Amino acid sequence: METRLSSTTKEVLISDKEPTILIGERINPSGKQKLVAALQAGNLELVRKEALAQVQAGADILDVNVGAAGVDEVTLLPQAVQAVTDVVDVPLCLDSSNPAALESALKVYHGKPLINSVTGEEHRLVKVLPLVKKYKTAVIGLTMDDEGIPNNPERRAAIAHKIVERAEASGIPREDIIIDCLSLSIGADNEAGLVTIETIGKVKAELGVNLTLGASNISFGLPDRNLLNSAFLVTAIIAGVNCPIVDVAKARPIILAADLILGRDKHARRYIEAYRQR
Amino acid sequence: METRLSSTTKEVLISDKEPTILIGERINPSGKQKLVAALQAGNLELVRKEALAQVQAGADILDVNVGAAGVDEVTLLPQAVQAVTDVVDVPLCLDSSNPAALESALKVYHGKPLINSVTGEEHRLVKVLPLVKKYKTAVIGLTMDDEGIPNNPERRAAIAHKIVERAEASGIPREDIIIDCLSLSIGADNEAGLVTIETIGKVKAELGVNLTLGASNISFGLPDRNLLNSAFLVTAIIAGVNCPIVDVAKARPIILAADLILGRDKHARRYIEAYRQR
Repeated sequence: METRLSSTTKEVLISDKEPTILIGERINPSGKQKLVAALQAGNLELVRKEALAQVQAGADILDVNVGAAGVDEVTLLPQAVQAVTDVVDVPLCLDSSNPAALESALKVYHGKPLINSVTGEEHRLVKVLPLVKKYKTAVIGLTMDDEGIPNNPERRAAIAHKIVERAEASGIPREDIIIDCLSLSIGADNEAGLVTIETIGKVKAELGVNLTLGASNISFGLPDRNLLNSAFLVTAIIAGVNCPIVDVAKARPIILAADLILGRDKHARRYIEAYRQR
Repeated sequence: METRLSSTTKEVLISDKEPTILIGERINPSGKQKLVAALQAGNLELVRKEALAQVQAGADILDVNVGAAGVDEVTLLPQAVQAVTDVVDVPLCLDSSNPAALESALKVYHGKPLINSVTGEEHRLVKVLPLVKKYKTAVIGLTMDDEGIPNNPERRAAIAHKIVERAEASGIPREDIIIDCLSLSIGADNEAGLVTIETIGKVKAELGVNLTLGASNISFGLPDRNLLNSAFLVTAIIAGVNCPIVDVAKARPIILAADLILGRDKHARRYIEAYRQR
């Protein structure tokens, strides 16, 4: 399965045959007080700075999320897209739970972006899928629905099936649907890692779609989070995740190591080059 | 499959249901000039020091190898076993290509050790298997034979089958055979990691035996070896390795992270405790 995304000048190909694609997570005010304050003031300097730093660290795609209390996303998301586009040329992942904000950003975006996200929830499906179809984008589908995030692989995979079926029925090709099997804190529930990994395996085997993962929830509340995230990312990539959403500077080394081991880095060229640049 | 090893006072259980067992690799003169010189002088102080340091770092078993030019292993291996036993109480892995040295060490060992190693080579099988049987030990079988280390999973797994068949025919129970699927430098051959991982999967599925791995060869000649070894260890553990031979101080953190993700560390107790001790 091949998902193609683009900016004005760059195309990114997501496929199991290619090296892992990294989606940079850092333009997101969740848990970042300075960014929240800047966004509330309409100041996008920090967004530009994070965009540049993440691409320099090796991000292939950037997630752009400006959702915070007191922020008018319908106005600010397209402005943030513009600000990011001023400094970097990678494809973007437009990230909002507000469909009107997504559409206002889609109107200014040049190329084929990713939308983050739709879920199995009815109100999300009916609002977001028409945007995906109209603007010919790709979309991330989260394996959660009106009842929350199921705690077993079968029910979580069933939501992935529902999203794919609804999207295909709307005329969206399967290659433009990227599933996020979701990770919860393994500190709160020791089975959380296994449930995610098994869901990834099922969804890959049953639907063949490309898979993202916001991997860092797994380590919430535990020490040495980067170590645990690293082990989880390797596990997830082996299971089938090929475009995780990560803190690129922290996660790229272990991801390049995993790609090398899995035979996706000829002559270890990317691994060695990244080491030289560190 | 359950392999039980013991010292005078401790038993170690190797099983897929249990946390990963770490075999400490550092009592081995290969590439260690200071240790070579000490062993040539019959000085075992460094061996004692390495034994203590590895157990303090979390080793469950220690490999003991004193093979170097100018060393009489038949005399020195039992002395080294005694020296290690003076300072730590974990089970040992007696490591020598010299069957007479193995037997002289077996005579002084109290408990059930691991022998490292037999291969598919005829002269090794006929010399080592009788020792395993006579002293009721467990043994590591390396997937190489008279023609070397095959570069494909099928032929490598075939050697594992041969070792298991020959051992069982000698009256050695399968649970006392631990297979090492071997890793070669991924810098020299980009497929090296995949061949090892696929062999591990095949051997686990077809024979059900416990699996060790000397994982650090994978990174030979490449930068940031610990990073690559870490990613490879996670991959190998997922594939089925449950008692790798490692530099414990370096490898234990990522192995504990992998165990936690795989549901083998209830309430994250081992992961958190190890972090506190670092």
